[in-house]
Amino acid sequence: MSRFFSSRFDALTPYTPGEQPQDRRYVKLNTNESPYPPSPGVSLAVAEESERLQLYSDPESRLLTNALAEHLGLDPSQVLVGNGSDEILNFAFMAFCDEDHPAVFPDISYGFYPVFATLNRIPYREIPLREDLSISVEDYITGEGTVVIANPNAPTGLSLPQKEIERLLADNPNRIVIVDEAYVAFGGESCLPLIDRYDNLLVVRTFSKSHSLAGARLGFAAGNSALIQDLNTLKYSTNPYNVNRMTSAAGIAALRENEYYVRNCSAIAKTRDQTAVQLRAMGFEVTDSVSNFLFARHPSVGGGELYRKLKERGVLVRHLSKDRIVSYVRITVGTPEQMDTLLRETKAILEEYQ
Amino acid sequence: MSRFFSSRFDALTPYTPGEQPQDRRYVKLNTNESPYPPSPGVSLAVAEESERLQLYSDPESRLLTNALAEHLGLDPSQVLVGNGSDEILNFAFMAFCDEDHPAVFPDISYGFYPVFATLNRIPYREIPLREDLSISVEDYITGEGTVVIANPNAPTGLSLPQKEIERLLADNPNRIVIVDEAYVAFGGESCLPLIDRYDNLLVVRTFSKSHSLAGARLGFAAGNSALIQDLNTLKYSTNPYNVNRMTSAAGIAALRENEYYVRNCSAIAKTRDQTAVQLRAMGFEVTDSVSNFLFARHPSVGGGELYRKLKERGVLVRHLSKDRIVSYVRITVGTPEQMDTLLRETKAILEEYQ
Repeated sequence: MSRFFSSRFDALTPYTPGEQPQDRRYVKLNTNESPYPPSPGVSLAVAEESERLQLYSDPESRLLTNALAEHLGLDPSQVLVGNGSDEILNFAFMAFCDEDHPAVFPDISYGFYPVFATLNRIPYREIPLREDLSISVEDYITGEGTVVIANPNAPTGLSLPQKEIERLLADNPNRIVIVDEAYVAFGGESCLPLIDRYDNLLVVRTFSKSHSLAGARLGFAAGNSALIQDLNTLKYSTNPYNVNRMTSAAGIAALRENEYYVRNCSAIAKTRDQTAVQLRAMGFEVTDSVSNFLFARHPSVGGGELYRKLKERGVLVRHLSKDRIVSYVRITVGTPEQMDTLLRETKAILEEYQ
Repeated sequence: MSRFFSSRFDALTPYTPGEQPQDRRYVKLNTNESPYPPSPGVSLAVAEESERLQLYSDPESRLLTNALAEHLGLDPSQVLVGNGSDEILNFAFMAFCDEDHPAVFPDISYGFYPVFATLNRIPYREIPLREDLSISVEDYITGEGTVVIANPNAPTGLSLPQKEIERLLADNPNRIVIVDEAYVAFGGESCLPLIDRYDNLLVVRTFSKSHSLAGARLGFAAGNSALIQDLNTLKYSTNPYNVNRMTSAAGIAALRENEYYVRNCSAIAKTRDQTAVQLRAMGFEVTDSVSNFLFARHPSVGGGELYRKLKERGVLVRHLSKDRIVSYVRITVGTPEQMDTLLRETKAILEEYQ
């Protein structure tokens, strides 16, 4: 820290992204990326667009926004694209939380939520997950503040039915509910169909996982057009050209080839369920994940220990050090071949403990 | 605005980017883009990288940061890349300005500075340019606060010698000076050589104009490594993967082919000076711009009027409505052919006034 850094940020601890080691090649199951490359049209669209990079991107991202709105069955005024859903979430925290509207989210969820709150000096309250690691809407109904729920939740992979979120929306129309649907494409139930009925709902999504575009950075918010306008006010006050030309082109091409991604998501869900069966057979306790990762623990080996031993064997998973989940590892669902490697190496490690 | 938008932003008026009309093709001289496309290696690098978009970009942008640091003769710890220099400037306002360190900048400069300040609820003071539209360092020496100076300044195109900025840095080592060098490649004098001597200097730059990458979004900060660390704290608290894979690849390729861009910048400077001579011959008052745009006014026709009439004729320039400069237009320097069109159409317009 320099002697010039504003004291506003004294309490700020930045987010720690999953490691991206450059030292050797791993079976990389630690950052919830898709194991499948983008569809062929993406490269072609990007290559074509790369000839025009001397010109600014359209600050309104009209072509992409229109394509996305059509894909979602929404009006373009109900959608805002951003440089990854992290940027969108930061705008949402800024816009809809403040001293009078504290942020409220589960104690175990996307680790960035408390960072966004602290960064923007927004008070926040963490609601403990239930004993079984589930979110109970009951725990949010009575309270005040802007609710932020990842659905499915990370790192548990557990999901709430749309009906439960709707209870929360209907319970207090003066409270915003932000639903982070980063992982919804792998088996969750989206709240997008509720947008026209609830002006207090903001849905946040990303192309990173379902559409194999983590490295392109493309996320979006969908909601009532007045909410989208608020987010736009913040976008035009930080970074009007937030989505570059190549990413816009990639997003449009990906939507055009959406079938490919739907198939990938199904394949990932299938691989996930097969892997869960095998992990359970090895003695793991595995949550009922409907996302593109598994959350699992074993009675014989701690989460940190398993993470380290797998890393030594060339398989990278994620271990989170929070007390309640310290015994777990989070395993991104890769290809069937990658999961075979994971299972084989895990089995070998477990043998050391018998 | 929705009924949910935080009252924190009551005073916020977003930045208005230059228009990007989609209705017809213009000779587009309104947003200071380069008239020359990126170098051939950029497309190749982007196409190659687009096959790996399912993987997150490196949050440290190591390859790009190392290449850039080497290019600048700095240590990688002295450089931070971002999603355009707007993102970097926003981080710099956040990090180095607050209630106790108000932002101080010229009344006529990049229109985003007051927006960044208002967004972050930072008090700011605008120092009037001198009568000849120049910045006098004298006006900043005595005051308190974090100084933000675009050098060359926009929209005037006028530049301060490095020695003058150094006076400001040396005058008060406890005051940060942020030098926005977006336009320095066309004839200005950079403050980069001062970085090792002054820990209160932050230089902000962009690949948008000099390196034909406006549509890729790539900017950077250079300064003492402690300052860079502060900006990193904010980056990791908003958007750790801020620079996507394709833009990183484009930036690295552009640095590898730097000669091409040096030649383009020289060509643009030459075209600028030739155009200025011709505008003056037509009766225009033209500032001594060392940037990639001209700032000019004519005694017979107002700035708004000239802008509108040029637009009718298919030539887009920028008109800014601030009182002191309302009589001017800002004209991006394009190719010699584009400037011939501008001059021909301007001449035709002026004939209506004789």
